[in-house]
Amino acid sequence: MRRDVTARLQLSVTEPALFALQIAVAQGATAERLTLTLDDTVLPAPPQFDAGYGGRTQLLECDPGTLVIEYVAQVDGRRATPEPPSSPEMDQLVMLRPSRYCPSDRLLSTASREFGGIEGTDARITAVRNWVHDRLLYISGSSKPTDDAVDTLLLGEGVCRDYAHLVVTLLRAQDIPARLVAVYAPGLFPMDFHAVVEAWNGSVWRLVDATGLAPRESMLRICTGRDAADTAFLTTHRGTVELTSMQVMAIVDDLPREDLDAEVVLA
Amino acid sequence: MRRDVTARLQLSVTEPALFALQIAVAQGATAERLTLTLDDTVLPAPPQFDAGYGGRTQLLECDPGTLVIEYVAQVDGRRATPEPPSSPEMDQLVMLRPSRYCPSDRLLSTASREFGGIEGTDARITAVRNWVHDRLLYISGSSKPTDDAVDTLLLGEGVCRDYAHLVVTLLRAQDIPARLVAVYAPGLFPMDFHAVVEAWNGSVWRLVDATGLAPRESMLRICTGRDAADTAFLTTHRGTVELTSMQVMAIVDDLPREDLDAEVVLA
Amino acid sequence: MRRDVTARLQLSVTEPALFALQIAVAQGATAERLTLTLDDTVLPAPPQFDAGYGGRTQLLECDPGTLVIEYVAQVDGRRATPEPPSSPEMDQLVMLRPSRYCPSDRLLSTASREFGGIEGTDARITAVRNWVHDRLLYISGSSKPTDDAVDTLLLGEGVCRDYAHLVVTLLRAQDIPARLVAVYAPGLFPMDFHAVVEAWNGSVWRLVDATGLAPRESMLRICTGRDAADTAFLTTHRGTVELTSMQVMAIVDDLPREDLDAEVVLA
Amino acid sequence: MRRDVTARLQLSVTEPALFALQIAVAQGATAERLTLTLDDTVLPAPPQFDAGYGGRTQLLECDPGTLVIEYVAQVDGRRATPEPPSSPEMDQLVMLRPSRYCPSDRLLSTASREFGGIEGTDARITAVRNWVHDRLLYISGSSKPTDDAVDTLLLGEGVCRDYAHLVVTLLRAQDIPARLVAVYAPGLFPMDFHAVVEAWNGSVWRLVDATGLAPRESMLRICTGRDAADTAFLTTHRGTVELTSMQVMAIVDDLPREDLDAEVVLA
Repeated sequence: MRRDVTARLQLSVTEPALFALQIAVAQGATAERLTLTLDDTVLPAPPQFDAGYGGRTQLLECDPGTLVIEYVAQVDGRRATPEPPSSPEMDQLVMLRPSRYCPSDRLLSTASREFGGIEGTDARITAVRNWVHDRLLYISGSSKPTDDAVDTLLLGEGVCRDYAHLVVTLLRAQDIPARLVAVYAPGLFPMDFHAVVEAWNGSVWRLVDATGLAPRESMLRICTGRDAADTAFLTTHRGTVELTSMQVMAIVDDLPREDLDAEVVLA
Repeated sequence: MRRDVTARLQLSVTEPALFALQIAVAQGATAERLTLTLDDTVLPAPPQFDAGYGGRTQLLECDPGTLVIEYVAQVDGRRATPEPPSSPEMDQLVMLRPSRYCPSDRLLSTASREFGGIEGTDARITAVRNWVHDRLLYISGSSKPTDDAVDTLLLGEGVCRDYAHLVVTLLRAQDIPARLVAVYAPGLFPMDFHAVVEAWNGSVWRLVDATGLAPRESMLRICTGRDAADTAFLTTHRGTVELTSMQVMAIVDDLPREDLDAEVVLA
Repeated sequence: MRRDVTARLQLSVTEPALFALQIAVAQGATAERLTLTLDDTVLPAPPQFDAGYGGRTQLLECDPGTLVIEYVAQVDGRRATPEPPSSPEMDQLVMLRPSRYCPSDRLLSTASREFGGIEGTDARITAVRNWVHDRLLYISGSSKPTDDAVDTLLLGEGVCRDYAHLVVTLLRAQDIPARLVAVYAPGLFPMDFHAVVEAWNGSVWRLVDATGLAPRESMLRICTGRDAADTAFLTTHRGTVELTSMQVMAIVDDLPREDLDAEVVLA
Repeated sequence: MRRDVTARLQLSVTEPALFALQIAVAQGATAERLTLTLDDTVLPAPPQFDAGYGGRTQLLECDPGTLVIEYVAQVDGRRATPEPPSSPEMDQLVMLRPSRYCPSDRLLSTASREFGGIEGTDARITAVRNWVHDRLLYISGSSKPTDDAVDTLLLGEGVCRDYAHLVVTLLRAQDIPARLVAVYAPGLFPMDFHAVVEAWNGSVWRLVDATGLAPRESMLRICTGRDAADTAFLTTHRGTVELTSMQVMAIVDDLPREDLDAEVVLA
């Protein structure tokens, strides 16, 4: 399996800015290139930090102007998931904890009522995936950046990030470790960055996508964390930055057919 | 400086339980001892995981019965803070992100209005500390475990954890990295586990305690993280556990006088 | 049918206080008596205002001391519901609006998903009643005075007021007028003031009690309104008042058997 | 003083609809006319209900099509405020209660902290008006229909309705009766329906407008109530209705100069 991805972001920086970028694939890239251009001047490579799970975070300081970020990568074959920032056991404990957009301590009653009678972790993961899939409508622009999984549940609609947050929250509320993953998703339409879930079934981190909008088999990990606070592709920390345009592309040489019953592990 | 701490928890386990324990000092302990006794039978030492910053998490599986947990440690002198689970730079980035009980993305406007005119990171940290100290009333039992910093701000009262969450949230909302630390706090009255804040001023992680209830100089780090979700001394993951009694003790050979103007770094 | 009710409230007034009292039956009382005693001195009758639907609100100014409020009434037979403060049509419109504890505009999606397929207003009312009855656990002290129906739904537990708020909210979210009624409820155990719902089915205001804790047939209306903000038995507007004890009693000469299938209209 | 107002709403009705309309001036209109046209066919006058305070609510059933609503009125001189739906005393009690968008029970601590030291009801009303004026930014489209005063306070921005809700909430939290009023506001720019507050100072209902966007002296009351749930110009109860265009016009023969220090009572 060969996958090619590109992302092109155009930003209008109106005050000297500091921001974090997370768009590089987590591992296995060949021919990878990240290019930053400010008003047609190529910038030096920014410092890069290890975000765990193979993820990489670039920290950019940037003067005002029009900043163009281009990322290109090719990935051949599949690889095992890289290490978390802590031990695997600690990672499982951490991914049980409530987080900003996944307040699992507020959905204990809901999770117990809806899934309490189901035997087996795998069956519960599948049930949560289907429940969220059936409850929500996928509507672009329906949610706000500050919405958490409770807001999504009440609203009944959202985008991939909202689906993923609700799945994570309902799993953690049942003491099933779950984490969010930003991915490139060949076959997604309309193409964009995508957000999915990894759920620990006791043996592996099963890949769960309640949107069902792309085959899981060919997804490519970018960043991994507790929720979108950890996996955002762009986070502004100082100054004023506006995203004026974005194009994401992800293709695979042979797009797999999504088999909902298959256990998929993100490579 | 010599500090002695003990913690004694008595738990009533009514269904086979799995839970995480975080009560050991982060570093430098001599003569440390953790003893678990279930209905008068001493249990083997539980598996222990690295929680970062020197913190340690024990994971206990326990049958029904009366479980008594006793921890004793002595610490001589002061030591530098241990490493975060990631690089120092990544740690700073992580500690800017909104978290479950510190939804900094919801207090951007409040932080800007109250502290926007203050020049300098240290001055802002001090201003936030004093603002929270002045706004909140310390009232035992006034808050709920699911309260976040917005709830605390509206309620106007809370306990140490709530003070710390509000400080962390207002700092992150100004792009100042801030994290929560569970500590033993000699001089605290009534004695209990205590929660304080570390704020990154560009050079060091300044220790901030908006409650002002104990001298910062002699506090002893237990666990460190984004908020109370990371630093709780006891988190139940399966079964039914009730904390029936708890005694915490922390003494220092020479209790320092708290100097509010001093920059203290937690050792 | 003959019903006898008494309520005895003891209040500790520590600062000169102003508060509203709503404990008198809405209509049809014979031998009614309201006695206020401050430190053993009988107070003059307070001014009384028409709260609509026959309800009456007393407004008390009271000096510090121990205030004892005693209310006794006897009601013979059943009577038609008194008039709302507006026209019947306007009342129906008002009882469609979201209110403090019944934010029906936040449960539109939930109501549509759970009840959207049900034909007929009466069938919907019954379905909402049963759904709330099945979802919630009745647990004394589980909820806070500021909880609204969304909080109750997430928490999965509450008291009569919370049951009623959730029913009202889910009905209004389907454009079925619904209002809260404080009642005396013979047969309730433990005896207390009770809160139930009236739902407009197009012909009558059906009495709905999702708790199922007392027969609807013998309930006696006290106050009626949008939610507990309108029907509270005691609301302090100035000063400091603490309720130190309360006894409520309501008996009927022949306690009816509750028939869940019967359409009951509160008399 | 002579005022002329017109409102023209165009609605696209795609499913048979039932909705309430509140756009008529509360009193004193001469030459008033309300015209409803569905696909160029003039509809009969809809039933109209008394909303209290002189307000009138029309209830429309409407088949699919393009509905045009035109309202024209002329008002000469000023008149006393019409009656509330209950007694004046009961109205004051009702306007102390928390409501959907004015959860005063959640801002008790904030109100006490910010205004607790101010003596006198009039001084408090003025202080709340100025505080809200200074805290919020007026930004069209910044708020959502489900936002309450707490959301507005945290967000730090809003439109007239949000300003009014926050003022009402902070007043009720200090036991000052306050209600929302929808008005025509000559001089408002851009022209639209406007929302302001009436606050009971012990003698009169003072008109308060924290936006400061139009002179209070020439405003014309439409509907009055607890919050926007009572005063919305259009509320859909069944079917699907989309507002496709709206023009509001309000002029006065001699636009008064707004004097912030003047006590204005809405006529």
